[in-house]
Formats: sequence, structure tokens, C-alpha cells
Amino acid sequence: MSEEARVTFYPWKKTIDVEPDTTLLNAAEDAGVSIEGLCAGNGRCGTCKAIIGEGEAHLTPITTAEEQTLSSEQLGNGYRLTCRAKVSEPGEVSVTVPPDSQKTAGIVLTEGQELEYAIDPLVKKYHVDLPVPSLSDNVADFERIGEALEDTYEIDIEDVDYEVQRELPGQMRTEETEDRLEVTATVYDDQEIIDVEPGLSETAYGLAIDIGTTTVATYLVNLKNGETEAISSQLNPQTKQGGDIMTRMRYTRRNDDGRETLKEEIRAGINETIEEVIQEAGIDREDIYESVFVGNTAMHHLFLGIDPTYVAGSPYVAAREAPIAVKARELGIDINDAGYVYWLPVSGGWVGPDKVSVLLVSGHYKESPTTVCIDIGTNGEISVGNDEEMLVTSAPAGPALEGAELRYGVRAQSGAIETLRIDPETLDPEYETIDDEPPNGITGSGVIDALAQLFEVGLVDQRGKFRDEVLDHPRVRENDDGELEYVVAYEKEAALAEDIVLTQNDIRSIQMAKAAIQAGTRVLMDELDIENPDRVLMAGAFGNYIDKHSAMTIGMYPDIDPDDVVSLGNAAGVGAKLALLDKERRAEAERIVDEVEYFEIAGTDVFQENFMESMYLPHQDFDLYPHVKEKVMRRRELEAARLEAAETED
Amino acid sequence: MSEEARVTFYPWKKTIDVEPDTTLLNAAEDAGVSIEGLCAGNGRCGTCKAIIGEGEAHLTPITTAEEQTLSSEQLGNGYRLTCRAKVSEPGEVSVTVPPDSQKTAGIVLTEGQELEYAIDPLVKKYHVDLPVPSLSDNVADFERIGEALEDTYEIDIEDVDYEVQRELPGQMRTEETEDRLEVTATVYDDQEIIDVEPGLSETAYGLAIDIGTTTVATYLVNLKNGETEAISSQLNPQTKQGGDIMTRMRYTRRNDDGRETLKEEIRAGINETIEEVIQEAGIDREDIYESVFVGNTAMHHLFLGIDPTYVAGSPYVAAREAPIAVKARELGIDINDAGYVYWLPVSGGWVGPDKVSVLLVSGHYKESPTTVCIDIGTNGEISVGNDEEMLVTSAPAGPALEGAELRYGVRAQSGAIETLRIDPETLDPEYETIDDEPPNGITGSGVIDALAQLFEVGLVDQRGKFRDEVLDHPRVRENDDGELEYVVAYEKEAALAEDIVLTQNDIRSIQMAKAAIQAGTRVLMDELDIENPDRVLMAGAFGNYIDKHSAMTIGMYPDIDPDDVVSLGNAAGVGAKLALLDKERRAEAERIVDEVEYFEIAGTDVFQENFMESMYLPHQDFDLYPHVKEKVMRRRELEAARLEAAETED
Repeated sequence: MSEEARVTFYPWKKTIDVEPDTTLLNAAEDAGVSIEGLCAGNGRCGTCKAIIGEGEAHLTPITTAEEQTLSSEQLGNGYRLTCRAKVSEPGEVSVTVPPDSQKTAGIVLTEGQELEYAIDPLVKKYHVDLPVPSLSDNVADFERIGEALEDTYEIDIEDVDYEVQRELPGQMRTEETEDRLEVTATVYDDQEIIDVEPGLSETAYGLAIDIGTTTVATYLVNLKNGETEAISSQLNPQTKQGGDIMTRMRYTRRNDDGRETLKEEIRAGINETIEEVIQEAGIDREDIYESVFVGNTAMHHLFLGIDPTYVAGSPYVAAREAPIAVKARELGIDINDAGYVYWLPVSGGWVGPDKVSVLLVSGHYKESPTTVCIDIGTNGEISVGNDEEMLVTSAPAGPALEGAELRYGVRAQSGAIETLRIDPETLDPEYETIDDEPPNGITGSGVIDALAQLFEVGLVDQRGKFRDEVLDHPRVRENDDGELEYVVAYEKEAALAEDIVLTQNDIRSIQMAKAAIQAGTRVLMDELDIENPDRVLMAGAFGNYIDKHSAMTIGMYPDIDPDDVVSLGNAAGVGAKLALLDKERRAEAERIVDEVEYFEIAGTDVFQENFMESMYLPHQDFDLYPHVKEKVMRRRELEAARLEAAETED
Repeated sequence: MSEEARVTFYPWKKTIDVEPDTTLLNAAEDAGVSIEGLCAGNGRCGTCKAIIGEGEAHLTPITTAEEQTLSSEQLGNGYRLTCRAKVSEPGEVSVTVPPDSQKTAGIVLTEGQELEYAIDPLVKKYHVDLPVPSLSDNVADFERIGEALEDTYEIDIEDVDYEVQRELPGQMRTEETEDRLEVTATVYDDQEIIDVEPGLSETAYGLAIDIGTTTVATYLVNLKNGETEAISSQLNPQTKQGGDIMTRMRYTRRNDDGRETLKEEIRAGINETIEEVIQEAGIDREDIYESVFVGNTAMHHLFLGIDPTYVAGSPYVAAREAPIAVKARELGIDINDAGYVYWLPVSGGWVGPDKVSVLLVSGHYKESPTTVCIDIGTNGEISVGNDEEMLVTSAPAGPALEGAELRYGVRAQSGAIETLRIDPETLDPEYETIDDEPPNGITGSGVIDALAQLFEVGLVDQRGKFRDEVLDHPRVRENDDGELEYVVAYEKEAALAEDIVLTQNDIRSIQMAKAAIQAGTRVLMDELDIENPDRVLMAGAFGNYIDKHSAMTIGMYPDIDPDDVVSLGNAAGVGAKLALLDKERRAEAERIVDEVEYFEIAGTDVFQENFMESMYLPHQDFDLYPHVKEKVMRRRELEAARLEAAETED
């Protein structure tokens, strides 16, 4: 030990003993500190610069590369390139890594937005050398590791997982050499040892899982570099017991083992997605140490098997708001047995961890512009306000916007129609399908396009009804149930043995879904006396694919300049990843619930009133949507002119 | 609330709101504070006195009873009787309860010693009224209880057990009335809610369990008053896999599922004793919230299923020294599922939680007299020293001292011979049996008596061999195996269909057991340069029944004045009770490991040498035992005189 130098990195205060001739960059890596290094240690990019506090004398002299890359002011202030500066002799060296040299990572959202975060997960791997026990040093195994972790990394371990404790003696001694035991301890939140492996191990993964009412999305994330290595998306198996939350809630009340059945279904479903991402990435399940979950309050309760009786009805009281961490083995989730399942907090009533996650990504609760943020799903989570005041609520949209429960609605899959235009003159559709395959159904985004276009070209009126004037168009017809429908794709062009249509009932389902979201938004806006927001943020499992013009045309969000409408993609899932990778971000998410106020709309008269007005396209009061009105009026003028021309021809 | 008075009790700083006309004693009880009250609230004993700080004006005037019971000086200093003083109006009252009014309890050890402790367990029940949720107050259930506990009792809950969380909503609402929810929360260590019951519940039990290598003792303790309500004692079921620890250790190595088998055996055995005490006391298993375990390091590892490989051989490294608390359901122990199994810490190597427990009871590590403290069991745990320096070690005595592995050895049971004298003239025995039943075997204490007497009357010599001079005595005979034996009870007087005897092999087993303890003691005494200790403390499952003169005669402990030899009874079990009932005592036990130094004797030459010398009665160097030598010499003179007289007669 006396032959080594001791280097401490700030702001983390992480200390490591290194042999002379080690670069500070390598020392940092060994200490578990992430320093940028874009040129891979060639001394050219300058991104790995850091300030030497004490111990400059124990380092190799300033190199030519450093003289070229660093300014004389930087050199004067004690800056060095950590890829060039080496420890030259035993002694104490302190290194402060400035924020711009700390390695961060980014998640690219849509439209060029990038979210920065630190790679600083709760789960960390620490490599330690332990002295071999002897009669004069027979400190117990757990204490031996604890002392080494404290000496080397200054972390004060509180305990070790019980199952890990049981196997600790054998695990520690696998790589015993004559004079040391070499192990890697995986530590949760710098408090609990959740794995001990012989030798050096650096592999650690986590999962970010978004349980939607209809869709479950599972992301496998490498905790070392933040990369998403595999994604699985599946139907929530609980839909067997009901497509919407209320039906599932009733199921738990009407069946003695209903709650257990739903818990078991989603558990098995989650484990299938985990198996999928493990297979895809070719990793071991033992290397997954944590799974961060988001979902609405109902999904939260049903996954955890918490009695949902009282959150289901007024006054909508959740069983718990605080974040929860439960051992994976206690829940039967197929990751490392000693690992954790973690849920972001519930904001209140029906506004769940998914909304907290969206707020973490959007950040609009801490910004001054007045913002409407809508997370589109079977339950639409809505927040309105700014850094001064922020209200959140949840609107029961139903699954139509996810393509479910419509005649030809499908999830985003190969061949699904995801965008659609209707020619205003011929009233014939043009569509694009995923992978350019022949169409086999319509996704949520396609459905929103379709409704917007049907309205814009005058096929349906403000109430969403097919207009009398178009009933002679060949694509508008009555089906066997006596219901009007519009043919989106004829059998000959489709992958199905029948026409793909959008029925009057389908249209009504979409209207109800958008009306719930729109009404919820308007209630919050009225509550805060907001006429029109400065901007609109749209999130959702398929949020990236929604055409914002179409969404505004049907009135899903307030009429503002389309440039001020930003799509966040699946922000709930992204927020779960942030919370998984960056413990500061997780702490921020846990604080968000204190920054926002939950506003209950369920069962209120004011919501019901707004809902009725919002069933219209875009709203009963057309003047609330001047851009849409102008567009539609122009179209009506064209149509009138066309009709007039046609009559003149006659 | 504005109609109530707020009373805070010190030193606990517990606050409670009470209606006017409530006595301070009742307020204290509701606040979970224990004040003495020997006269049951009649104002006569004065034991419930306390000092009023602020708020005297909000109390009823001083009563005649108080004037008679309290001195004028006490009255002048603000003392009141809490059973008499009532809150008279809303306001803030602070009450300091002096130590002599704080309710404590005592455990009577042998010989008039009483151990005082506070009834202040880690498991506490808190009764709270909660406002009924409404749309304007729909804080979640867990947070609602947490806030009430903080407001009423100033405890800051960290979490709720996951399984309790699941059922929380239903449990909370069982006793819902129009304007409040009334619940009792059971809290572990003022941190985690481990039970929520509707209404008021005050029932709480704990277990103190001493797992000996040979015997398991389970005590059911009422956490409200400290009473032991039932006891069960059973053979450790692991004895099927070996009577001594080493055999069991080998069993875990030689059988793939050996470790699991031993864990399962002791788990099932413990659950049988729990079932017994539950039946005897007529209580529900759900009302048992904690079980404090003690035992040696091997029992600790084998019960918890921890790999014992490396503690079994040099350098005898335990897997863990820190105390451990594991959910009962994780270990399959049949108490409340959310309750805890807690083990006192391991002191080092083979000196386990049982020894820590004995030290907690004996307290000699913090006292100045030089003390030898021996816990007699299959493994003898020995501590030597005082408040300045204390060494502890463990000596492999084997099960002979517990009556096991001897031809007629039995546990303490009805009909067992527990004391024995041999007439120095006739060489015939006199014995006493438990319950005065016809004899069916010999207990450990009877066995120690027997060997001491055989030696004292000259039936065996210093090496433990039957002396040639006595071979013609009718009770000394050769058995079918050609082995000499002494008849303790003839068939006609016994409950067995054969004679009860003590064989030469039995004697050798007892010699080896006592030699291990004696040698361990001597090694520690030599290490500390102690010629003779000031006192000897003897503990053990059957410690109360050992005759201290007999024990000294065979050399089990150093030759000191018998008045300085004190029996502590089953101190390990008593210490477990202390740790269960009084969290300060538990904290003390956790600190003890830092006060004592573990000294390894296993496999050392110095132990082996001492062991050989200690095989003699009382020791190879007879001069180390002057009292014994004098007694034996006097007996030899008498015998010589008798022989001479007999020869003269011839």
C-alpha cells in the first residue's frame, strides 16, 4: 500500500489507491467515476480536463498535448488532462472534475430535443481486494467487505441482502489467492449489498417498464453506459379481464381471488417481456438488478396486489403515494433475486407514477411558460400550469386512442395504417403503413388522422355524424348492422380478406376518448384562469406518431400555434429510464409530487359539462378553435363553390 | 381538537390530545408511556408522581390525597400524582416522569439477584383517529396513517410492510364511523408499520428463543407487561444429524442439500415450540410480532441457512457479526408474517449471540471485579476479565454436561436424578429426582454431582479411574462389555427394567467436557495474568441446578470461596428476553461485541496442553485447588484410618 498513491475525485469524494504510472483517467474509472473522453485518451479533445487540488507534485509533468489543448489560463488554474497526467510517486492527490468534464448521457426525444442525465444509477458495482483472514484477523465476512468498501470508496454499508449473506462465504473465496480475496460487491443506494461476485465484474443492467392499461413496454438498459439494449412491447394481459380500468376494478370486487388473478396475470406478462429482452440482448437475468416501473395508479395497485377498492370510487383515495421498493423475489419478477422493483410515487388519486414520469421528462412544472401537457393513453394524464402553480388530473379516455376496441383498430405493427389523408376533392384516402406492407388495420395515430380528415373534408359534421351530402359517395355506405361506415382500404389492396373501414361507432369512440382528455384539460385551464396556454406537450406510448395538426383539428388540445406543440414521445417510459440511470433524477421525481396539486375531476358536474361540449369537433364552441375554424370554413367555401359549379353544369 | 388539551410526557417527548377530565395517568397510557401505579390509581402509593412543567393552570387543583402522599417539598417542586391530577381545560401541559416513577420490570435470577429493565420493546402499538377521506382531503391511506402517527406520537414512519400495505385500505375502514377512522398501527423500531388493525388493539407478544446445540428453549413474553406466559423446551431436532456441532458441519459439506436440511429441521422444531406456547397461553400467532434469537455461532449460521464452511475450521471466520433482522415470513417462522426474526450479534468466530446475551445479563464486562463467566452447554462459552479488559472464547465441551450421550443421561424430566450424594462410609448413593418420581436417568447436574462424589469418597482417583481398593464394593462391577461401572440405582427402585449406572466411559465423557471448559478458562486467565478471579458466574440451560461445590470439586471453575460463585440460571435465554423487552438493553447487547475481545483457542497448542492437564480431577496440579485438596486429603485420612481399623480387626 505504501507504494501506491491515493487519488480522491471530487465532487464524488471517491478515493482510490493506484500504482505509479496510472493515468488519472484510469484511476477515475477504477474509482467508479465517469469522466468524459471523446478522443479516447489521445489528449486532443480536452473533454477529460480536471483541476488538481493537492498533490500536483506527485504527478508527471505537463505534456505537450496538454499545452496544446488547454489554454494558458486553464493551465494556470491547475487544469490537467486526466488522460495524460499520471501518478508518478506515492502521495495524496485530489482531483476536481468540473461539470462539463463529468460524463453525462442524453436521450433524444422527438424534434431534436435531448434530455441530459448523469449515469449515476442506484445500483453500483464496487471492486475490492480483501486481506485473507487469519487467526489474528478473523473479522467476519460481511464486516470484512463492509470495511473494504468504506476504506476504498467511502461508502457506509448498512446491510447485505439476506440471501446474499447466506452464500457470502463461498462467493468471497472463489478467487482466493495467497494474499488477497478479490470480489465485486453490487450495492443498492450505497446502503445494501445485493450481490457479491468473485473477481472483477462490471456487468449491470436495469429495466424501465411502463405498464399501460392496454400496453406494457419494457426497456432493457445497460447501467454502465445508459444504452437501451432491447425493447419489448406487449398487450397488458389484464385486458382479458376488461379493457378499461373500471371493469378490472369490478373484477377484483366480484371475484374472491380477483385481485390475485390480476396480479398474477401482469406478473407473468412482465416476465414474458423480460424473457424477450434478455433473449434479444443475450444477457443473464442475474445481471438485472433493478426494475423501475411507471403506470397509472390502478396499474400500480393491481401490479403490487394492493386493494384497489377505495381508489376506484369517490373520493378516489390511493392506498399509498410514496415511492415503493420491494425485493424482486417477493414479487416474483424474474430479475436478480436480491434486486429491487421500484415504483415512482403516486401523485394522488388517479394521477399515477406514469404522470410523475412524464413531468420528470417534460420539466414544465419548473418552467415559466404556461403549459398543457397531455399523456395520451387509455387514461389520459393531464397537467396544466407552470412553475408557480400546476394542477394534474386523469381523464378516462378509454382504449380507442390506442387502436383498441375499434372495428379495425390495431397496435403499431407491420402493415398498420399510421397516417392517413383524404383528398378534399375526390374524398378518397391516401395512407402510409408501417414497413409499407399492405394494410391490416389502423393504429391510434391513423385513427386520429382519419377523424380529423373526415371532419376537414366534410364527410362528417361537427357532431361526428356522416353528412347527408356525402351519402352517395362510393366509400360511404351502410353495413350489415345498418351502420354508416367509410372505406379506408378495399379488400383488394388490404392484407385482410375484407375491406378496412371506420364505422360511425368507431368515430363515436374516438370522439369520447378525445372529449375526455379535452374536457379534463379545460377544467384545469378554467381552474387556473388560463385562456390559452403558451405551449402544448404531447406524450404517449404512440405520442411520437400523432400528427399534431390532426390532433388539434379534432380538439384534443387547445388551438395554439402548431410550432408551440411539442411531442415528447413515450415520456413515461423515458422518465422511468431517467429514474433508473440517474439517482438525482429519481430524487427529483420523488419531489415532483410536492410541486403539483392533484385535482379530482371524476364524477364532477363541471367535468361532465365540459365533456358534453367536447364531444363536438373540435368543440361545441367553434370559436375556441380559430385555426381549425378557418381551415374548415375555407374547405366549406371550396365545397360550396364546387357544388355551385356542378349545379351550373347541370 | 380545539376542545382537547395537549399533554407531552418527558423524557419520551410523547404527545397526546385528551378530553378534559382525563387523568394524566390515563393520558400517559394512551400515549404509550408506562408510569408506575402500585395502588391502582387510588392516590395512596405515590409511585405515579411526576413533575408538571408548563400548563399547571390547565389541571384540576391539588387533591387531599396528593397533599397526604406527597411531601411539601415535592409539592413545592411541582410534583403531582398522575392518577389524581386531571386535565381541566384545553391547553398545553408538559409532564416529566422521574426515573423512579417510570414503570420498569425485573427478572429474578437465582440467589435473589434481580435484573431491572424498562418495558420499552421495539414493537409498539399506537392507536390513532384518522379523519375520513373526502374529495377535498384524499391523501392516500399510508400517508394518512403516517401523518397521524407523527402528529400524535411524534414518530416519523419510514415505511409499511409490503404485505400490510396491500391490505391497508380494507383494514383501515372496518371501523369507519361518520367522522373518523379508528385504527391501531403496530410499529417496529418506530420506523416500519408491521400491522394495522381496526379499532383499538393492545395485544402484543414476542418470543425469546435460545437455540442450544442440544436443547431449544422458547419463551412467550407479553410485550405489554413483560410477563413470560409460556415456556417450551425441546431437543434440537438437528441432533438427528449429529450431537455435536462438528458432525453437523460435516453433514452440510457431505450432503448437497445438507445445509437446507438442517435449516428446515430447526425451523420445523422452532415452529413446534411456538405452537406449544401459543396453545398453552391461548393466544393468536398473529399477535406475536418479534422473535429474538440467541445461540452459538454454529446454531446462528445453521438456523439462518448461512454457509458455515469457513467458521468450522481455522481461522474460524463467521459469515457475519452484525445483528440481523429478517422478516418472519422469509424464514417461515410461524409468527405474524410481517414480524421479525432478530438475532443478537456474533462476538467473533465461535463466540456467538448466546454469549453476548449472557454478558448482557451478567454485566461483568462493565464491572471492576475480575470475573470468570462460564455458560455451560455443548459449547462452553467463557469470558474472563473486567471493565478494563475482557476476553471471550468458546470451548467444545460436548453434550455430556446436558446429560446426552451418557448411558443413562437424560434431560431434566420427571424422574430424572438431579442431585446425588455418596455416603463416604458405605459408598452407597442418595439421590433426589425431579417430582420425586422413581429414577429413570441422570441429568447434567446429577452427573456433575456423581463425578464429584465418586472422586471425593475415593471411588475414582485423580485420573477418573475406579480405584483398585474399591473393586470389591457391591456397587462397583464389570458390565458385559468388560467396562467398570457404579450402580446409582438398582432396578427394583428405578422406573426402568434395569439398573441405572455410571460407566467408566461416562466418567471419561464428563471429564472431557469439564476439561474443555476448564482449559479454555485457564488459557484466558493466563493470557490476562490472572491467578484467581474475584468471582465466578455460572450460566447454562441447567445452570441453576448445578451444585457449585460439586462443580468446583471436579475443577470446572477455579478454586475460589463458594460465596463468590453465583449462578445466573439460563442467562442466554434471559438476555434474549431483555433484548426483546427493552430496546436500550438491545442496543447495549449490540455494543457488547465492541467491549470484548474474541480469543481463539481452537486448535492451539496452549489449549491442547491445558486440556490434558484439566482431564485430571480437579487438575493435574492439585495445588491449584487448595479447597478441594484439603477436602479430599481429609477424606483420605479418614479412609486410611478406617482401613487401619479394619486391618486391626482382622
